[in-house]
Formats: sequence, structure tokens, C-alpha cells
Amino acid sequence: MISTCLIRRVVLAGRFYQKATFAQEFFKAETAFNKKVGRKTSIAPRFTKKSKLKLSEYLRNMASPEIEAQLAPLRIAVKEYGDLVRQLKEQGAPKIDIDKAVIELKARKKKLEDTEVALAPKEASFDRLKLEDLLKRRFFYDQSFSIYGGVTGLYDFGPMGCALKANMLQEWRKHFILEEGMLEVDCTSLTPEPVLKASGHVDRFADWMVKDVKNGECFRADHLIKNAAEKLIGDKKTDEATKSALQDVLARLEGFDDKDMQEVITKFGFKSPSTGNELTPPIAFNLMFPSQIGPTGDFKAYLRPETAQGIFVNFKRLLEFNQGKLPFAAAQIGLGFRNEISPRQGLIRVREFTMCEIEHFVDPNDKSFPKFKKVHSYPVVLFSACNQMDGQPAVSMTIGEAVEKGIVANETLGYYMARTHMYLVKVGVDPRRLRFRQHLGNEMAHYAQDCWDAEILTSYGWIECVGNADRSCYDLTQHSKATNTKLVAEKKLEQPKTVDVVEVVPNMAVLGKEFKKDAKRIQTALAQMSEESIEDLEKQISTGAFKLKVDDDEFSLTSNMLSVKRSTKTVHVEEITPSVIEPSFGIGRIMYAVLEHSFRQREGDEQRTFLALRPRVAPIKCSVLPISANERLNPIIDAVREELSRYELSYRVDDSAGSIGRRYARTDEIGIPFGVTVDFESEKEPWTVTVRHAESMEQVRVDLTELGSLMLALSTERMDWETAKEKYPIFETKSD
Amino acid sequence: MISTCLIRRVVLAGRFYQKATFAQEFFKAETAFNKKVGRKTSIAPRFTKKSKLKLSEYLRNMASPEIEAQLAPLRIAVKEYGDLVRQLKEQGAPKIDIDKAVIELKARKKKLEDTEVALAPKEASFDRLKLEDLLKRRFFYDQSFSIYGGVTGLYDFGPMGCALKANMLQEWRKHFILEEGMLEVDCTSLTPEPVLKASGHVDRFADWMVKDVKNGECFRADHLIKNAAEKLIGDKKTDEATKSALQDVLARLEGFDDKDMQEVITKFGFKSPSTGNELTPPIAFNLMFPSQIGPTGDFKAYLRPETAQGIFVNFKRLLEFNQGKLPFAAAQIGLGFRNEISPRQGLIRVREFTMCEIEHFVDPNDKSFPKFKKVHSYPVVLFSACNQMDGQPAVSMTIGEAVEKGIVANETLGYYMARTHMYLVKVGVDPRRLRFRQHLGNEMAHYAQDCWDAEILTSYGWIECVGNADRSCYDLTQHSKATNTKLVAEKKLEQPKTVDVVEVVPNMAVLGKEFKKDAKRIQTALAQMSEESIEDLEKQISTGAFKLKVDDDEFSLTSNMLSVKRSTKTVHVEEITPSVIEPSFGIGRIMYAVLEHSFRQREGDEQRTFLALRPRVAPIKCSVLPISANERLNPIIDAVREELSRYELSYRVDDSAGSIGRRYARTDEIGIPFGVTVDFESEKEPWTVTVRHAESMEQVRVDLTELGSLMLALSTERMDWETAKEKYPIFETKSD
Repeated sequence: MISTCLIRRVVLAGRFYQKATFAQEFFKAETAFNKKVGRKTSIAPRFTKKSKLKLSEYLRNMASPEIEAQLAPLRIAVKEYGDLVRQLKEQGAPKIDIDKAVIELKARKKKLEDTEVALAPKEASFDRLKLEDLLKRRFFYDQSFSIYGGVTGLYDFGPMGCALKANMLQEWRKHFILEEGMLEVDCTSLTPEPVLKASGHVDRFADWMVKDVKNGECFRADHLIKNAAEKLIGDKKTDEATKSALQDVLARLEGFDDKDMQEVITKFGFKSPSTGNELTPPIAFNLMFPSQIGPTGDFKAYLRPETAQGIFVNFKRLLEFNQGKLPFAAAQIGLGFRNEISPRQGLIRVREFTMCEIEHFVDPNDKSFPKFKKVHSYPVVLFSACNQMDGQPAVSMTIGEAVEKGIVANETLGYYMARTHMYLVKVGVDPRRLRFRQHLGNEMAHYAQDCWDAEILTSYGWIECVGNADRSCYDLTQHSKATNTKLVAEKKLEQPKTVDVVEVVPNMAVLGKEFKKDAKRIQTALAQMSEESIEDLEKQISTGAFKLKVDDDEFSLTSNMLSVKRSTKTVHVEEITPSVIEPSFGIGRIMYAVLEHSFRQREGDEQRTFLALRPRVAPIKCSVLPISANERLNPIIDAVREELSRYELSYRVDDSAGSIGRRYARTDEIGIPFGVTVDFESEKEPWTVTVRHAESMEQVRVDLTELGSLMLALSTERMDWETAKEKYPIFETKSD
Repeated sequence: MISTCLIRRVVLAGRFYQKATFAQEFFKAETAFNKKVGRKTSIAPRFTKKSKLKLSEYLRNMASPEIEAQLAPLRIAVKEYGDLVRQLKEQGAPKIDIDKAVIELKARKKKLEDTEVALAPKEASFDRLKLEDLLKRRFFYDQSFSIYGGVTGLYDFGPMGCALKANMLQEWRKHFILEEGMLEVDCTSLTPEPVLKASGHVDRFADWMVKDVKNGECFRADHLIKNAAEKLIGDKKTDEATKSALQDVLARLEGFDDKDMQEVITKFGFKSPSTGNELTPPIAFNLMFPSQIGPTGDFKAYLRPETAQGIFVNFKRLLEFNQGKLPFAAAQIGLGFRNEISPRQGLIRVREFTMCEIEHFVDPNDKSFPKFKKVHSYPVVLFSACNQMDGQPAVSMTIGEAVEKGIVANETLGYYMARTHMYLVKVGVDPRRLRFRQHLGNEMAHYAQDCWDAEILTSYGWIECVGNADRSCYDLTQHSKATNTKLVAEKKLEQPKTVDVVEVVPNMAVLGKEFKKDAKRIQTALAQMSEESIEDLEKQISTGAFKLKVDDDEFSLTSNMLSVKRSTKTVHVEEITPSVIEPSFGIGRIMYAVLEHSFRQREGDEQRTFLALRPRVAPIKCSVLPISANERLNPIIDAVREELSRYELSYRVDDSAGSIGRRYARTDEIGIPFGVTVDFESEKEPWTVTVRHAESMEQVRVDLTELGSLMLALSTERMDWETAKEKYPIFETKSD
């Protein structure tokens, strides 16, 4: 759907400043929730004590009274326009006035958010270069085709990135498809043009682009304006009035259309940054990759920009698979493609990416959800449209409260938001850097009823990673119209009812004689006529002929060719077009956020970086390290291998030269959560090994016979490290 | 690689007629093999006694002396030309003579194979329509975009197909990537043109196509000829001479080039089958889907026709990841795209498909494989080039014997063939309908050293499902040349050796003054000169100037600008370009074969069809069926759900109306291997349920507390049904 194009737009929005409190609240509420639903293990803490301290400092600083004092007037400025927009809407003011007010509102919001980010203490800033170096060096992912010069916006995943992604997808499949009993489908990337015409993508899935008038080089218009404006602002020669005007442009840029952008380009005389040539006016560039199917070149197709359409066109089969019953959810994991004009920001904006999408089909008049009570007390941070318009920060509440208060539109949407939150935390997103932001009225597609993006705070700002939208019946209706196919479900009426039926009964003998082989088409067209058009036909035919259009042909029908029959019939069901609730996940973005949130530097040795990945998504569950190359240890190493293989655990043996400390550092770097070390103590019967927790560097000593079950419990997170430490003797070492 | 385009060509080749014997042999050898490697469970038998009997009848019939008598002269006819080809090769005869002989050889081979198929008893034929009906009705897969009229060659997988495919891929990842410690990568589908130019796809990945001269409709030339010839042969009016000529055409068609096809079209006056219009001469149609990256339209790209190239262009990163050591294997699971001219045959020939490819990089002078001894006694059926040329059937032997005798080129290739075979059997391919066919000399790409396709016998004939090729160093060399990048590994020399080094030492001061900013480029170019060109430079520069070409520029160098330095150096390593062994799996084809081989009809009720899928790949592991709708059973049903969920088993409750027999039939149809029934016996303390084996319809009674662990053991195939029957009391029922 169109609105999901937003999933790939970076949103730098207001950081909420009550995070420290929220974080505590979150864990408290979560523990209570876990107990209630009988979940045995709590979510493992994401930070060692030291880094926890550091983060909480960051959060406290963010919320300091000094900062709040600087933010207060900006919050008031936002609220002023928030109130104005509401007032205009109430008064039924002209759309153009409302739109203007919304643009100003957004500009003020942006100023507030930028200030919040700017005021964040430097110590809390994150060293992205160090992380990127690690990811490249250990081949988590890297630019595609780089020996050929590389292609921007395309990335290849190496063994580590691949395994991380596979584990995240596996977890997604378990968490959503299996646990919720969804119907999974796997549709093609190649999509014929008419399908994407109906969905609106052919006409509206575009970005504004300007071209160098001489050499034709292309630039994304908003990016060009942003860069040019920032450069001018940074230039000492620019006068204050111009600087201020440019600041204003930057704040409003997100709401600009082509005319606004053209005006700015002309006013400030922006040129091509590479040649200094003039630029064309902004033109719409469709973001779909075009191709064609078959050899003739006539069959136009695109690579799908999202997986959702594949589900909609299969609606009938899926409904049938579900024995005709609503509600049901279908899900798809697969590739999406978007021909970005000039992709930047690593995995955040790419041209080919893995998506996981759910389409939950539900009765439009009943969006209650039986399992909602299971998540009722689950806490989430909500940044509602209302708070955004008031300049207020996001607030924490239970999803139950949010639905009861009408902040979130209905139980089904609320349920998916809670489940989305659980998934993200499960794979390693820091819940303190996770919020749901509601779309403002004018951000939503006109048919959407409510939309909440799960946004994750990274060094790129708040990144939209999952969209959760109530899309009403838009997509099914569009495909139904385009194909003249009914895409509806039957709903049993509480009371059978009697309805009047009007139908055209063709006289096939006469029609056949008159129209030969076209008679069949005419019959079909007559059978599909609405009540209204039949009445129209009746009127016209009584005084002469009725012109019936079938595709591009027109047939003249007279009264001897048909009759109109009126009757009543008792119906027990009504046909309804289901509403669709759509959670849509961008896996690459989530993966990047997980990597950022897992990135650590060892206290006192900033060069020693590592990834504290959650065991359940870690590419390799444990390393196996002999303390020395002494051959005496080999039988024990072999026994360790065998024990781990028996439990189907992925492990990596590092018996290379180099101190044990260096080898630990190497395995920590790729996010191996546990290390098994074979030392000379191990030889004493019964054989033992030490198990090391990479994040805390703590170790315990374990009987070899218990190693497999312990590692399985730890790596599936059925047991946390704290419990393991209680169960097994701590092993102290100086080697780390 | 080019040769893998063959993976999508149907090969209707000779059925081997010693299958009954082989099947017995296979299971005997396999059991011995299992014992040897300590595998606990044998592969479960694929057929109930009844169907086993039926199949063995089929096999015996195939091999009857009557049939063999009819085949004998055809075998001799093949051998005659096989011998001739060998003789011509030995004599070093002109290529054109050899090619002619090979075409005749192939024609005779095809006649032999067609006769074998034709002589197969009718009872053994398989009712494909019934299977297709089941697959469509229960939404395993179906044509994509059918509400829009559908697109040939594109299929959407529904919930059942999706889960089956996901399980097959999961099994593949375990069997190859995890067990063999391969480096998995995940590269993009979008591929820039220069990459596919280097790999040879832009120039040679094509099929011959003819067009209707008037309306431009396109036909694949070989398909058009085949259909037109078959139609003429079936026409009573066609005289015997023409029929025989056409038979000859059909037999030779596979070896035809464009000229041959044009000749046939002209000779027999073949026209467009839809309009009767004349046809153009055959033209090459490239099978890759074209697109472009970015907004300018200048950056040409294609959707990858295979995943392999992504691995080759990442070779350097992967070698580094493997700490510079050979051998290592990289693997990729992902989409491939081929713009087939007119795809038919369901999942066998599609335009978008999932592939699993392995590239095993190895020292070209040492293709031994340490783990080969583990598969040494594993039996496979080999249809060697030699046997094909002699008109002999495929034979069974251990892979160890095949490598020792030089039938299979080396241990690495042999190891992968054995592992491929194990995988296919694991996911449900009937080993009696599985063989490896060696490529004939002229089928292989010129650089390939050996190539064996795993072919599976289906109702479409023998289908190539996995290619296993030794591709030497072709791909790395091509990409290295195209990018001017070294794609080599370092190999430690047994003895360090002293080598002469010749290098050009530029005088940068002079060069800089003369060529300004080009001096740097000249320096780089000089550093890359080969020994030969340096000698050439020396000669020319001694008498005047040397013209150095850099890209499109030429620079005139004189003796004051540089000197040539000669020295010796001791080297400890040599650079080698690794050879590549490539197993390449077409998952859709394997899945189709698995569905055919799993398809059964109940004895005595041919309308009652079902799928006997292997538990480990079955989409749903068990059904849960209450014997009646009586509410008294609900607490037990809930307990069953809980027990199954605890073991993370996928199940489906069917508490709809309808007899238990009908509900069994419904679950059997979608390949649910086990059924849990709750009946009124269940209520007696301690609660029990019955477990039903769908294939045999046998049932046992089990304590509810043991249900989860039993179902886990059965569905992971750690326990087979025979063992379960020994462990639990048989439950007899009349309800089935």
C-alpha cells in the first residue's frame, strides 16, 4: 500500500524525556505481565551494570530542568498551531487553510525535535564509525558488487549478517505465523502493471527529482535543497536574514510539494552540486523498478515495492482456505524493491530489502480481538498525534488503557502493536529506545483509519521500522473494481431478511440471432447490472433502445430481447468487504537498530568493541576455545564438539594461536554470547569446561555432560545468565 | 554460470530397468552405512506394504525380458555411434565430424529412452490431474495474479506450500550450511550488467525464438517445432516418409542450432499455431529480466538468473573471513529469475524460483576431501556418459567405487553428490526414482571438468533438479579480468623458492612535471605491468619512446622517466586461483517431485487421495480431532493443545462437523502425517489419546503426558512408526 512508502522515510522526531522512569516502569510492568501469562523467564537485562549506569545518565541529562526550560517555549509554539489546526477542522475551514496550518505545525514540531537532539549530551553520542568498521571487517554486510565499483543502496550479507537475519526471520515466523496461526503465503516479486495500477503505486509511488539541465544528472529534490541550504547556512558570508529563511525552509521541507520546492530552488539560486549547472523543475520519479515479462516487450511489470499486494490478490483463496470465516490473518516474508533516487544511510534506505507483512482481515463493524485481554496490561510508549500537536513528549501506558481511552483505534490494532513491541524486544531492540508514533491526519492515506509506526531511536534519529495501520477496505475494493471480481466475505445475519431482487432475463434466442457470438458477452453484462442501471434500462427500453456497453463495444437492445423480473428472496447472509489491519516490518532496519543497540565498548578499553546480541538471534551460539595448543586437550575438545552437535547448537572452534584474551575479543566482536573454554583443569575426571558470558565476562565451571543442555537453555533464553551463575560454581580468571 | 541454465531443461532420458534390485541394494547398503556412521534411525520406508508391492511390480515389469528384447537392438544402435564418437576423438578427427556423430548418437539415445518410457506398463502411470486438483484445491500453490488473468510461469505458494518449502529450506540449511560449516551469504537479485557480461550471461544466456511475421507473437523455436511435428505425425493424412522424417527431427531437436531449426521450419512449412502466418528465422532471446538502477536510465541491470555470481564477487571477503585458508564452501539460498519464452509444466519451468547454491573453493591440484571416507560406501545410481554412449542403463555403485574408478572426477565432487542424494531422500524423494546423469562432453561448458545432474523421475520424465559441476577456475578468472582485481588464494610452498623480480621504478619528479595529475595513474599502470611487457618497454625505450596505454589515454614515456630494476626475492607462498565445485539446487522442482512421490490413492477408493509427506518436511505435524462435538471432551482437547505447544509442534484442530473418517481424509490430503484423536476412552484417568499414522491408518493409544515427546520424536524422524507401534498398544478401530 501507498502508505507503507513511509516506512522508508526517516523521521527525526521528539525524544521523550521521561525515559529513565519509563524504563523502570517497563521492566516492572513486564515482570508483572510475564507472571500473569505464565512466561517463565523475563527478558534478560540489556546492559551490564556499568553501561546501564551510563545510559541512565544520558536519559537523565535529556530530561534535565535546564534542557526542559529551553524546550518549554518551543513546546508552547507547537501547541499554538496544534490548537489552531483543531479549531480550523472543527469550523470546517477550507482544506487549503488547514493544510497551511499543518505545514506550520510540522515546521514548529521539527524545530522542537531538532533542539531536543542538539541538546543531548555529547557523551551519549554513539560512535557509528567504530560499529561500521566492525560490521564491514567481520563481514556482517557490505556494499554489493564493490569489486565492480559498488552500487549504492544494495548490500550483501556475509555469514554473520546472514545468520542474524535468518534467526530474526525464524523468530518472526514463530512469534507471528505459528503462535497466531496465520496463513503464510509466498508470492512473486514480478508483478504485472495492472495490479500496481489498481493499488495506486503506478500513479503515486514517487519522489520529486530535479535534473542537471546539461548533463542530465539526477538529484532527489528534497535532499538537494537540504544539502544546499545547510551549506549556505554554514557559510560565513551568508547574511542573517537569508540564514533564517533557510532554517525555515529546512523546517518545512517535509511538507513541500513540487511547486514549493521549485520556488525555493529559484529563490536561492540552487544549482547542481556537481557541475553548477541549472536544474529542471521537480518531476515525479516512480520508485518502482520496471521490467517486462515474456519476449514481446508488451507485458509491462514491476518488481513489487511491498509484499502486501500478493496477499490481497490471493484473498479469495485464503478465505476459502480458512473455510470462509473471518477474521483471519495472512503473512508474507519476502523481498521488496524500491528504486531510490540517491540512497544513503546504510541499511536504513536500500533498494532491495526483506519485509515481513501481515494482513489481518476483519469485520469492519467488529474489530474486537478475543486474545486482546492477554496483552491488556502490556506497557508501550505512545507518541499520539495529539501529543505531537501539543508539543508534548511521548507517554507510557498499557495498551489496554490506550484502547479504552480511544487513543488507539481498536483492539485488533492494539493487539498487533503489543505483539510488535514484544517481537522487537525479543530480537534485541532496547525498549527504552522504542516508541509508537501515530500518523498525523494528513500523513495518512485518506482511506486509513489509524496508523502507528514503531520507531526506534538510532544514531540516524528515530527510524520508522514497523508500520501498524488500519487500512479499512481500500485494497480489496481497488482490486475488486479492477478485476470485476467479488472480494468479499459472507457474514451470517442474526435474522434472515427478505430483500427485493431485480434482474434482467435475456431472451437468448433473439439475442443469439441478432448478435451471434456476442450474445454470451451481453448475457454476462446483463447479469452484472446494478439495480440502478436496470431501472435506467427499463426507462429507456420502454421508449426505444438501450445502449449496452461491453468493454469497447456497444450493443443496442430493444424490448423484445429481454424482460425485467422483480421478486423477493430471503437471505441469511450479507456480503461484507473486510477491513485490513496491516503490520509491516522492515527487517533490514530492525537489524541495523539491533546492531546499534547491541554495540558495546569495554570499560577502560574503548578500542575493544563487541556486540551483546540476544542469544536467540546470535549467529553463533558459542565459541570453543582450548586454553593452549597442547594436544592433550584434543580428546576433550572433540567431546565438547560432540556434545554441542547433539543439541544442534551452532558453535565455532578457535584453536588458532594467540592468547585466550585475544581470542575472546575476536569472538565477542561477532556477538557470540557464550564461550566454552577447555583448560588443564578440564582433564580431571569427570571432565569439566568453563562457560563464559561474553557481555559480563563472567565464567562458571560445568560438567561436560551438562554442557549441551545448559547451552541450549541459555541460547534459547529459557535460562538467563543470572540463573546459570546460581546453578554452577563461578570460575575466576585473570586471562580476560 | 552458463551451464546451470541446463538445470531448467527437461531431460527425458532412459529409465534404468534394474530398479527393483537397486532398491533392495540401496536399503541394504544404507542400513550398513547408517550403522557405520552411528546414525540411529534408518530412513523410514516410503510405502505401505500394498503400495510397495505395486511399485515393485512396476519395476519388475520395466525390466521384463520381453521389454529388454525390444530394447536390445536400440541399445546396440546407440553403442555403435558411441564407439564411433570415441574413435573419432582418438583419431583427432575434425570437430564438425565429431559434432555430427554426437547428434546422431543423441538421436539414437532418445529413441531408446522414448521406447523405454513407452513400454512402461499403464498401471504404473500416474494420475497427474488428481494431484494437481489436490494442490490447487488445498492451496499448496496456484498461478499468480489469476484474478487479473494470471501470468504463466509465476506461482504463489499458499499456507501448505509455503510451510513445505520453508521446511525443505530449513532442512537444507541444516544439512549443508550448518553440518558442513559453510559460509552463508545473501546477495541482491538486482545485478549490474558488467557482472553478467563477465559471467557470460549477457552474451550467451538465451533461447531460440521465432516470431509471427504479422502480429509479432513469439514462440520458443524448439517447442514450436516439437508441437507442429507431433501434430503432423498424429495426422492420418501425413504419409509414412514424412512421419519418419519428423520422428527423426524430434529425436535430434535437442542438438539443433538456429540454422537447423530454420531448415526444418522451411522444409515442413511450419506456421504460427495461432494465426497460420509465416514465421521469422530463429533469433536468440536473452532469458534475463532487464531493469535499471537509479533514475537516469543509464545504469543497466538484470535480475540475477542464478545466485552463484553473488558468491564469486564476494570471494575476497569470504576468503578473508575464512582467514585466507582453502578449501571452503560458501552457500546462498535465494531467488533466481528467468524470462522463459513460453513456460509450461507447472513448477518445473517457472520465471521466478528459489535456488540453493554452493560454491566450494578448492586447490585445483588437490581435490581430495577429508570427510570423503564418511560417504565412501554410500550407494548412488550413476548414468555415466559412457553408459549413455553405449546405450546401457544407469548402474548402482558406491560413491567410493565411482571415484576410485575415475567415473566421478574427484573426491570433492563425489562427496557433494552423496550429500545431495542424502538430502533429496531426507525430504522425500523416492531413491528408486533418483539418479545422477553425467553430462556428455559437448553438453558441458568448455571450462567444466565434470558435471553430474541429479535427475528425478516424475510424470514429466527425468527432471534435472540439482546440478553438481566441477567448474574449474572459470568464474573467478572472468571476474578478475573484468575488474582488474586479484581473486586468488595464497598457498604455502613446501620449500621457499627464489624468484627473479623485474619491476619498473618510476622517476616521479620527472613524471609529475611532465604529466601533472596523470602521473599517479601512470605509476599505477607501471606497477601492474607483466614481466613480458616490461621487457617490451625496455626494448622500445632504449631506442626512443614507449607508448603506455592507460584506459583510453596514451602517454609517451622516455628513458629519463623511469628505470627497470631486476632483483631476486625469496617467496614462501604461491598464488592460486581456486577451482569451484558447484552443487546447485532448484527447490521448486524438488518440491514438485516430492509431491508426486508422496501422492497416494487409498486402496479400494481411488477418489481418496492423500500425501504421504515425510514428517520432517510436512507443513503441519499433527491434527487434533475430537471424536464428537460433546463438550465433555473440551478439557482434554485443551490439554492436548498445551502439550503440543510445549514441544513447539505445529498442529491443527479440526472440530468441525462431519464423521471422523471424513475429517481424517481432509487432514490426510494435506500431508499431515499424524492424527491425535480424543475419544470417550480418553476420559478415563490417566487421560489417553490415540495417535494415528496417516500413511498406514494404524493407531496406537498413548498417555497424554507422553504425547509431546512421542510426537516430537516422530515428527523429527528420530523415531519411526514401526518403533512407536512396538512401544505403545495398538488401537483398533472401524471408523476409518
